[in-house]
Amino acid sequence: DGGGVESLDYEVVENFAYREEQAQRGKLYVSYLLVVKWFFALLIGICTGLAAVFINIAVENFAGWKFSVTFDIIQKSYVAGFVVYVLINLVLVYSSVYIITQFAPAAAGSGIPEIKGYLNGVDIHGILLFRTLIGKIFGSIGSVGGGLALGKEGPLVHTGACIASLLGQVTCGCAAGVAAAFRAPVGGVLFALEEVTSWWRSQLMWRVFFTSAVVAVVVRAAMGWCKSGKCGHFGSGGFIIWDISDGQEDYSFAELLPMAIIGVIGGLLGALFNQLTLYITTWRRNYLHKKGNRVKIIEACLLSFLTSAISFGLPLLRKCTPCPDSDLASGIECPRPPGMYGNYVNIDAIVILSIFQFFCSKDKEYNDLATIFFNTQDDAIRNLFSAKTINEYSSQSLLTFLVMFYALAVITFGTAVPAGQFVPGIMIGSTYGRLVGMFVVKYYRKLNIEEGTYALLGAASFLGGSMRMTVSLCVIMVEISNNLKFLPLIMLVLLISKAVGDAFNEGIYEEQAQLRGIPLLESKPKYEMRNMTAKEACGSGRVISFPRVVKVSDVVSILRSNKHNGFPVIDHTRSGEPLVIGLVLRSHLLVILQSKVDFQHTPLPSDPRGAGRSIRHDSGEFAKPVSSKGICIDDIHLSSDDLEMYIDLAPFLNPSPYIVPEDMSLTKVYNLFRQLGLRHLFVVPRPSRVLGLITRKDLLIED
Amino acid sequence: DGGGVESLDYEVVENFAYREEQAQRGKLYVSYLLVVKWFFALLIGICTGLAAVFINIAVENFAGWKFSVTFDIIQKSYVAGFVVYVLINLVLVYSSVYIITQFAPAAAGSGIPEIKGYLNGVDIHGILLFRTLIGKIFGSIGSVGGGLALGKEGPLVHTGACIASLLGQVTCGCAAGVAAAFRAPVGGVLFALEEVTSWWRSQLMWRVFFTSAVVAVVVRAAMGWCKSGKCGHFGSGGFIIWDISDGQEDYSFAELLPMAIIGVIGGLLGALFNQLTLYITTWRRNYLHKKGNRVKIIEACLLSFLTSAISFGLPLLRKCTPCPDSDLASGIECPRPPGMYGNYVNIDAIVILSIFQFFCSKDKEYNDLATIFFNTQDDAIRNLFSAKTINEYSSQSLLTFLVMFYALAVITFGTAVPAGQFVPGIMIGSTYGRLVGMFVVKYYRKLNIEEGTYALLGAASFLGGSMRMTVSLCVIMVEISNNLKFLPLIMLVLLISKAVGDAFNEGIYEEQAQLRGIPLLESKPKYEMRNMTAKEACGSGRVISFPRVVKVSDVVSILRSNKHNGFPVIDHTRSGEPLVIGLVLRSHLLVILQSKVDFQHTPLPSDPRGAGRSIRHDSGEFAKPVSSKGICIDDIHLSSDDLEMYIDLAPFLNPSPYIVPEDMSLTKVYNLFRQLGLRHLFVVPRPSRVLGLITRKDLLIED
Ligand SMILES: Nc1ncnc2c1ncn2[C@@H]1O[C@H](COP(=O)(O)OP(=O)(O)OP(=O)(O)O)[C@@H](O)[C@H]1O
Ligand SMILES: Nc1ncnc2c1ncn2[C@@H]1O[C@H](COP(=O)(O)OP(=O)(O)OP(=O)(O)O)[C@@H](O)[C@H]1O
Ligand SMILES: [Mg+2]
Ligand SMILES: [Mg+2]
Repeated sequence: DGGGVESLDYEVVENFAYREEQAQRGKLYVSYLLVVKWFFALLIGICTGLAAVFINIAVENFAGWKFSVTFDIIQKSYVAGFVVYVLINLVLVYSSVYIITQFAPAAAGSGIPEIKGYLNGVDIHGILLFRTLIGKIFGSIGSVGGGLALGKEGPLVHTGACIASLLGQVTCGCAAGVAAAFRAPVGGVLFALEEVTSWWRSQLMWRVFFTSAVVAVVVRAAMGWCKSGKCGHFGSGGFIIWDISDGQEDYSFAELLPMAIIGVIGGLLGALFNQLTLYITTWRRNYLHKKGNRVKIIEACLLSFLTSAISFGLPLLRKCTPCPDSDLASGIECPRPPGMYGNYVNIDAIVILSIFQFFCSKDKEYNDLATIFFNTQDDAIRNLFSAKTINEYSSQSLLTFLVMFYALAVITFGTAVPAGQFVPGIMIGSTYGRLVGMFVVKYYRKLNIEEGTYALLGAASFLGGSMRMTVSLCVIMVEISNNLKFLPLIMLVLLISKAVGDAFNEGIYEEQAQLRGIPLLESKPKYEMRNMTAKEACGSGRVISFPRVVKVSDVVSILRSNKHNGFPVIDHTRSGEPLVIGLVLRSHLLVILQSKVDFQHTPLPSDPRGAGRSIRHDSGEFAKPVSSKGICIDDIHLSSDDLEMYIDLAPFLNPSPYIVPEDMSLTKVYNLFRQLGLRHLFVVPRPSRVLGLITRKDLLIED
Repeated sequence: DGGGVESLDYEVVENFAYREEQAQRGKLYVSYLLVVKWFFALLIGICTGLAAVFINIAVENFAGWKFSVTFDIIQKSYVAGFVVYVLINLVLVYSSVYIITQFAPAAAGSGIPEIKGYLNGVDIHGILLFRTLIGKIFGSIGSVGGGLALGKEGPLVHTGACIASLLGQVTCGCAAGVAAAFRAPVGGVLFALEEVTSWWRSQLMWRVFFTSAVVAVVVRAAMGWCKSGKCGHFGSGGFIIWDISDGQEDYSFAELLPMAIIGVIGGLLGALFNQLTLYITTWRRNYLHKKGNRVKIIEACLLSFLTSAISFGLPLLRKCTPCPDSDLASGIECPRPPGMYGNYVNIDAIVILSIFQFFCSKDKEYNDLATIFFNTQDDAIRNLFSAKTINEYSSQSLLTFLVMFYALAVITFGTAVPAGQFVPGIMIGSTYGRLVGMFVVKYYRKLNIEEGTYALLGAASFLGGSMRMTVSLCVIMVEISNNLKFLPLIMLVLLISKAVGDAFNEGIYEEQAQLRGIPLLESKPKYEMRNMTAKEACGSGRVISFPRVVKVSDVVSILRSNKHNGFPVIDHTRSGEPLVIGLVLRSHLLVILQSKVDFQHTPLPSDPRGAGRSIRHDSGEFAKPVSSKGICIDDIHLSSDDLEMYIDLAPFLNPSPYIVPEDMSLTKVYNLFRQLGLRHLFVVPRPSRVLGLITRKDLLIED
C-alpha cells in the first residue's frame, strides 16, 4: 500500500512557461484569481453544508425507522424484534462495506490521517477523488445508520476535503467538514489550523473562516426547513449538539481533584485505545485484509451482528429502575425512550406511548442500560450529558457499558467502512466521566454538582487522550455543549489528558498515518538533527543529474533506472565550468516525452525566446492531476527515431530551487524544508563569494 | 524615533560555543529547558492575571469613588459637582501623563503595534523593559480612571507581553494579556495567532493555550475573592463581560439586510477612524510632541477637561424621559444610575437612593444620555447591550453620543498616555448598532428583535472595520457576550466590515506601525516581487566582509564606517580560492572587542579546539539583552596596543547562514525570509555542483 504515497509539490516552478504567463496576465488577473478563490470557498461551504445535512437526514431516518419498527414488533415478540433489528443493521452495514470494497476503497476509515498527510505535503493516491467522495457519503450513512460503534464526523471532514479538492482548496474543506459535523465554525477553523495544515498563511485563515461561516448558515437554514416536519424522522435534535446550558453553574476548588482524575483516566484510556487499535489495524492489514474483499465484507457483517446482539441483549439482563417521583420543581422524570426526544421525531404518537416501558414490565420504570445502549449514539450522549438527573444511572450499568462499548469501538476500528472516532470517543469518555461524577456526588455531598458536567469533561478527556488535540478540541467541545462556562474546566482536563497520553504514545492520527506509510513531518525537528549536517542526511549516493540538452534515449533510461522525482540540471559556462541551472521534475519530463513537440534534432541549446518556443505548453499542462498517479514512464512509447533526438531542458526546469550549504545543521535544513513545504532541496558546496545581503529593508517594497 | 528600530535575530547562531554547549548538555537538558518553559508559562499566566486584576480593581475604585463623590455634591450644587468631577479627572490624567513622560515614554499608546512588530521580527528599543511595564500599569489606571475616551485592554496586552518578555516568551504574554483583558482565553490564543505572530509553531500554540487557561483561572479566583466585598468599589461586574444570555433567540432572514448595513457602516466608520487618527498622530509627532514633555502634559490635561465637560454638560441639555411602567413581567424598569449596577458596588446605600433622579427633577424619570455618557465605559456598554429595553434610548441621544464620542476618541488617540482602542470602539459601534436596531424595531414591527443584539453586532463591525481582525475578534466578541448563538451573525458582520474597510486603508495597527517606522513584513509577498530577483533587491553596493583573521583596528574602522549588522566572513582554501565561511554579527563583534580576551598576536588562524578556546565565552554572553540598545562601537575604548592585535573570527561566526542563488525570484526569497524569521540572507552565485538532494525521506529520522 505504501507505494501509493508521494510528496506534493507546493513549490511554484518558475519556468519559462510560468514566467511568460505571469508577464502576460498582470494585476487584473490576480484580482480575478482572488474572486474565483472566494467564490470557490463559498461553494465549498454550501456543498459541505448540504452534504452534512444529507448524511444526517439519511442516518436519522434510517435509524429512526429501524427503532420504530423494532419497537413495534417487540410488543409481540422479543425474538422477532431482535431478528428484525439485527437484519436491518446487517443490511445497512452490508451496503456500506459493499460500496467501500467494490467502489471506493480509499473511503474506508476516518480519512483524517490521510487529509493530515495531504496538508503536510504527502499525496495518497485516490484519497481525494470524486468516487471517494461518493463512497464516503453513502458508506457512512450505512455504517452509522447500521449502529456500529463509529461516528460520522471524521468521514464528514474527509467529505469536505474531497469537495474542496475538486475546487483546489483542501484546507477550507477540512474546516468546513468540522464546522458541519459539529456545528462548530470556530472549532473548524482551529481544527484545520492545529491538526492539519503544516504551513499556514494568515490570508488563508480569513477564507477558511468564511467557509466555516457559510457552513453554519447553510446548516441552520436546512434545520429550520426541517423543523416543519419535512424531513421525516429527522427532528430538531439532528446534528450533534448537546446543549447543556442548564449545567452546573459554578465549581469549587475541591472539585478540581476529581476533574484532574478524569483527565488522567482520559489520558490512560486514550493511549490504550491508540495502542490497541494500532495492534488490531496492523494485524488486519497484514493478515485479514490481504485475503480480499470477501473477508472484509464478512468481517463487517460479523461485527454488525455482534454489535446488534450486545446492544439488544445486554439491557435485557439489567433490572429495571423505578422512575423518581416526578415533581415539576426538580424537573426529574423518567428518561425518555428513544423516539421521544432528541435525535429523531417519531411520527406515530401511539407507538411512543405503547413502548414507554421498553424492556420493563411495569409502568414508571426504566432500563438505564437501554437508554444508552439501545439508542442512537447522539441520544445516548444526550442522556449521559443530561443535567438534573442525579442517580439516573447505576454504576454497574455504566461500567458494563464502558467495557463493552470500549471493546466494540476498538474492534470496529479499521473495518472497511467509513468510520469516525469522535462520537465513540465521546460515548466512552462521558461514561467514565459520569461515573466519576457519581462518586463526587456521593462523597462531596454538594447539591450543585451535576453528573452531566462530569460526563462532558470525561468526553473531552478521552478525545484529548486519544487525538491529542488541544485548542481546537476545546473549542469544539464548548461549541457542541453551547456553554462557555466550562471552558477553563475543559482546558484543564485536556491539558492533563494530553500530557498523560503523550507519555505513552502518539496521537491516534499520527499512529495511523505512520501505519499507512504516510511520512508526516512533525513541526519540530528531532533532537539528533542538531549534530547532523545536510550532507550527512542526503547520503553518499551519486547525484543523478541531467545536462541541459539531453538525448531522449538517455532521459528514458535514466528515468527507468531510478525512482527519483527530481533531478538537477547542469550546464557549462562559456569558460567550461559546470553550473547548476535548475531542477527538473520527473513529472515534467514525462509530459515532455509524451507530447514530443519539444524534441529537436540538434544537441545545441535552443534560444529560449525563439519563435513559438513558449506557446507549445501552458503551465496548466504540467500541473499534476489531483491525487492520481499521473503518467508513468512505462506508459510512454517512443519510436527509435524519437530516441535519437534531443531535448533542451532549459525552458522546463525550475531555475532556482532552494539550496543549502553542505555543512548546515539538519535542524536548520528541517525548518527550511518544512516551513516552506518543499519537496526537493539541493545540498551545494559552500559558496565562494557573497554577492549581496538581503535584510528586512530590501523586502519592504512599496506598491 | 525610527532610529530605535532594529531587526531581531531569531536564527540560532551555531558557532563553536553553541555547539560545544549543545554537545555537553544532551537530552536531559532539553527536558529541563522544556520544564522551565512550561513553568515560565505558568508564571506569566499568574502574573498577567494578577496585573489585570490589580488594574481593574484600581480603576473601578477610582471611578467608583469619583462618581459617588460627585453625586454627593450635586445634591447641593451642580457647579460644585462639576468642579470636583473635573478636578478628580484632571488629577488622574495628570498622574498618568506624568508617569509616561517622565518615566516610561515607551508605555504611551496601546502598545499593540509595537508588540506586533516585535513578533514580526522588529525590536523597538525600550518597548519591553521593566519600567515600561510599571509605566503601563500605573499609567493606564490613571488614564482610564480619569474618564478619557480610551480603554485598558490594549495596554493589558502590552503589559502581558512585558511580563512575558522578562521570561522570554512574548507570544504567551500577548495571549495572556487578551485573555485577561476580555476574560477570553480562546480569543487570546487566536489573537496571538492571527494578529501578532508571523511564524507560528504548533508546539507554541499548546503552551500559549496553557497560559491563557491559567489566566482564566487566576482571574476567576480573584473575582470570587472580591465578591465578598474585600475590593472596595470593585463589584462582581468588574472586567468587561457583557453577558447577553437573554438576548435575541433567533433571527429571520429579513434581518440579514440591516445586519449587513451595520457591517458596511462599521467598515466605513472604522476606515475613517483609521484615517483620521493617522492624520492626527502624524501631526502630533511632527509638530506638537516635538516641543517636549510639557506640551504633552498640557495636551492631556486639556483633553481631560474637554472630556469631563462634555460628559457632564451634554446630558444636562437633554430632557428627561419618564420610566416605562415597570411591570415585572417585561422586566423593564428605569435604567439604573451609575453605582447601582454593574461595574462597581456603591457601598453607601443611602447615596444611591438620593441620586436616583440624577439630572432629573422628578421621580421615575431618567436621563438617557447620562446613562451612557456620565458613566464608566463598561457600564455604558452594559446599558447599550441590554436586552428587553426597547426604546430606552432616543435616537437623538444616541446620535449626539455617537458624534461626540467618535470625535473624542479620535482626538484622544495618540496622546501620551496608555490607551487602548477596544472599549472606545465597542462604545462607538454599539451606539450606531443600537440606532440601526431601533429602526429595525420600528419598521419590521416584530417582537423578538432586541436592540441590544444589534448593539453587539455594531460593536463587532466597528472593531472589524478598524482593526481588521477576523477570527480572533469574532471569538472575543462571543466570549465577552457569553452567547454562542450570535456567532454566525458576528462572523457575517465582521466579514463585511473588514472587506469594506480594506477597500480604503489598512488596519489601525498596521497604519500606526508604519507611522512609527516599524517595518512589518506582511504575510504575502508583493505582486511586483515575481519579476525581481534576489540580486536586484539587495542593490549593487559592494559587500562589506571580513577575512577570517582580522586586525582589531580594521574591525573598529569597518564597524565605525557603516551601520550594517551582519558581515560575511571570507576565508581561503588551501589552494587559495575564496570561501565564505559564515556570517558574523555586529553585536558579537562588539562583545569580542569589549572583552578583549580573544585578541591574539599572530595573524594566523588559531586552532578552534585548542586549549581554553571555548570556555572563554558561553553562548549566553552573546545573547542580546531584551529590547535595549546593547553596546555601541563608540562605547568601546581600545588602547593602541589592542588595535595592533588580531582576532580569529572562526569560533564566533554563524557557520551556515541561509543562502539563495542570485537569480531566485524575490517572491521565493520573501517566503524564505519571512517564514523562517531571518535577519540576514546571503545572495550567492549559482552553485557549480549539487552534492546531494534532500527529500522528505531524508528528514524522517527515527529516535
Ligand atoms: N536525482 C537524485 N540523485 C541522487 N539521489 C537522489 C536524487 N533525488 C533524490 N535522491 C535521494 O534518493 C532518496 C529517495 O528520494 P526519492 O526521489 O525517492 O524521494 P522521496 O523521499 O520518495 O520523495 P517523493 O515523495 O518525492 O518520491 C533521498 O534520500 C534522496 O536524497
Ligand atoms: N555587510 C554588508 N555589506 C554590504 N551591504 C550590506 C551589508 N549588510 C547589509 N547590507 C545592505 O545594506 C542595507 C541596509 O542594511 P542594514 O544592515 O542596515 O540592515 P537593516 O535592514 O537596517 O536591518 P537591521 O534591522 O538588521 O538593521 C540592505 O539593503 C542590505 O542589502
Ligand atoms: Mg518516492
Ligand atoms: Mg538597521
